[in-house]
Amino acid sequence: MSRERDTAPPSGPGPGRRAGVSRRTLFAAAGAGGLGVAAGAFGHAAVAGDGVEASDVVPFRGVHQAGIATEAQERMHTAAFDVTAAGRAELVSLLRDWTAAIEDMAAGREIGGGATGGAYDAPPADTGEAMGLSASHLTVTVGFGRTLFARGGEDRFGLADRLPSALIDLPHFPGDALEEARCGGDLVVQACADDPQVAVHAVRNLARIAFGRARVRWSQIGFGRTSSTSRDQATPRNLFGFKDGTANLRNDEQAALGEHVWVSGLAGGEAWMNGGTYMVARRIRMHIETWDRAPLSEQENFVGRTKREGAPLSGGTEFTAPDFGIEGRDGPLVAVDSHVALAHPTANGGVRMLRRGFNYTDGSDGLGRLDAGLFFIAFVVDPRTHYVPMQAAMARSDLLSEYLRHTGSGVFAVPPGAGAGEYLGQGLLGG
Amino acid sequence: MSRERDTAPPSGPGPGRRAGVSRRTLFAAAGAGGLGVAAGAFGHAAVAGDGVEASDVVPFRGVHQAGIATEAQERMHTAAFDVTAAGRAELVSLLRDWTAAIEDMAAGREIGGGATGGAYDAPPADTGEAMGLSASHLTVTVGFGRTLFARGGEDRFGLADRLPSALIDLPHFPGDALEEARCGGDLVVQACADDPQVAVHAVRNLARIAFGRARVRWSQIGFGRTSSTSRDQATPRNLFGFKDGTANLRNDEQAALGEHVWVSGLAGGEAWMNGGTYMVARRIRMHIETWDRAPLSEQENFVGRTKREGAPLSGGTEFTAPDFGIEGRDGPLVAVDSHVALAHPTANGGVRMLRRGFNYTDGSDGLGRLDAGLFFIAFVVDPRTHYVPMQAAMARSDLLSEYLRHTGSGVFAVPPGAGAGEYLGQGLLGG
Repeated sequence: MSRERDTAPPSGPGPGRRAGVSRRTLFAAAGAGGLGVAAGAFGHAAVAGDGVEASDVVPFRGVHQAGIATEAQERMHTAAFDVTAAGRAELVSLLRDWTAAIEDMAAGREIGGGATGGAYDAPPADTGEAMGLSASHLTVTVGFGRTLFARGGEDRFGLADRLPSALIDLPHFPGDALEEARCGGDLVVQACADDPQVAVHAVRNLARIAFGRARVRWSQIGFGRTSSTSRDQATPRNLFGFKDGTANLRNDEQAALGEHVWVSGLAGGEAWMNGGTYMVARRIRMHIETWDRAPLSEQENFVGRTKREGAPLSGGTEFTAPDFGIEGRDGPLVAVDSHVALAHPTANGGVRMLRRGFNYTDGSDGLGRLDAGLFFIAFVVDPRTHYVPMQAAMARSDLLSEYLRHTGSGVFAVPPGAGAGEYLGQGLLGG
Repeated sequence: MSRERDTAPPSGPGPGRRAGVSRRTLFAAAGAGGLGVAAGAFGHAAVAGDGVEASDVVPFRGVHQAGIATEAQERMHTAAFDVTAAGRAELVSLLRDWTAAIEDMAAGREIGGGATGGAYDAPPADTGEAMGLSASHLTVTVGFGRTLFARGGEDRFGLADRLPSALIDLPHFPGDALEEARCGGDLVVQACADDPQVAVHAVRNLARIAFGRARVRWSQIGFGRTSSTSRDQATPRNLFGFKDGTANLRNDEQAALGEHVWVSGLAGGEAWMNGGTYMVARRIRMHIETWDRAPLSEQENFVGRTKREGAPLSGGTEFTAPDFGIEGRDGPLVAVDSHVALAHPTANGGVRMLRRGFNYTDGSDGLGRLDAGLFFIAFVVDPRTHYVPMQAAMARSDLLSEYLRHTGSGVFAVPPGAGAGEYLGQGLLGG
């Protein structure tokens, strides 16, 4: 039952590209050869680069990490870790092991020796719950928290002089109700896939591999992507029932991605971040019970768009630019304190962000209310310019504070992608 | 933007039947008419009974409630409620309102006047986050907890003399670590759909509708059905990485369903349960970190099956009957203390259950471990014969207690389906 391990890097389409073929087709293509063969076939299609598009594999290696400009998948499992490794060598070994495992899983392969292929008297190298499932467009994106570089003045891994200036602690915003156990972390792993079991399998195995070197600090499951990151995707709805992410950066806007998402041009101690980006994660609980009792008129004025179509209240259709009255136009305007106005680039010095968040529902609180909302994720070139000013303006809005409460927070430096033979973070930690 | 409300009961295929047509096909069929039209089309296909199978609608009305013998969907959101209604009339009004809302949602329609079709200065009748999503095979199954009939000697709703004898409080099992906040409830609502946003939308709206009459006690999200309930479905894997539910009752085993699932032949105060069943829900946390460090040999001996194929260790393939050595056969046997042996009908007086559980992952605990496992759901004709003996035997197993901990529990009487014009539970509460 052992399986061969593909060692050549995939050379398929770029990270932003996905082949739209169903799992049924994949299994049909794999024929009667069984699950192992099917998984092998997925890997093969990506490796061979032979024009076969019957793949739901997102290539792992590249200039940028996958899972950022990649078309947003349907499900997410993100976990932050506290590093317990004794020193830099152990941290490097963890990142090497993670890189190999991520490459396997992204290709639809079982990790290492597989779920059943190793020694019978040893724990399997893969936990196995993704056996028989396709790669499901799995991407795993790894980032570094500020505490990895320095924690309470302690330079655990000799990285203090490589802390990027953009990797800030976010300031306190009005209305923040952050829970320590949902904040921060030395490392973050964002796993996205169309099948939640594939995303959970990825995080669970990375946590297993990290045993003794890092442990889970918090984790979050999300569903129903709240943003579309390609023009092929319809704009999904958040738990307020409104379309969310209409004005999001798309993965074919190369110039805008270069300006607003990808880090470039740094030298010296921060040069390792070129090709990377920053991930801002905020767990935003929505007071949906309060919202659900608000009149439709109030909901639409709050958002600044119509609920059904997502058109700005100034008129037009979903993708019509909202009119905030700045240019003195007659007719209906979008209120300047609406969500769309506060979040709009025109109100934020022209900055844009690549949003890639997910809805969440984590059971209920002790008061009979659902603990539900938005796990906000944005990838930006610099949180200081591309997140803090916007959030500061939003948090001052009385409208928002009635319905939203930020309960978790993290900022992570996401290094560039791994080239052939490299591990994630090699530019920072050396090889 | 208002939408017409279909009032005729659907007359499509039976609850156990699903049309296998993709959402893409549905939207293509709906054409360019927009979201409202698309949703209307779903409802229409089911209502018209015109042979159109381009529907992912599971009919709501029938002899039995949907969501039991229905082919298991991919996602689940289950919530239990404490009733706060002042008396029986308010409880009846809640069940009437829920029935109407469930019928709308199951047909792919927005609830009542819709998400945007009501008065502009009133809260919408539907929260809207499922606009543009298909019915997604949504089923919502409603059940009654023991406390609805009598709570601490108080007969709140005049139902004490109609308490079914099978609606027991489960005994304490060895190894139970039940959390009060995850147990019990006067009412339960199990929403299943292929799209989690559709399932969450259902529970969220039922909670909203219940405002002032019932409030959420606990809720649980699940993914990756852990059982197949039709022969068309491959056996999925649980978070131990093993196929789960190989020996499950299938929805085409009518005689077995009649014997082991559907209540029948009751008279007097319990007659309202004829056509119903009992739902046993157990939140079973898996100590996956411990499991992941166990050798493959130990894992397979614990389960009694091979990990990759799911074949019994006595040989054969997945669907070969396990050999426990009872008939004195030579060759390898399945250990009598393995999971498959303890759960097998031969060890439990021939009883079978319809399992319909889901995997769950609820973030992590404070100790760096994922809070993950199985939300076990079984539908049985009588928990006293069809659950308690098996669980008692399993809980005595040292093997299991190392890896499993039951943290939540509930038993609910699931009344029969609603006929034309009826509300769910009408047989109990009267019309």
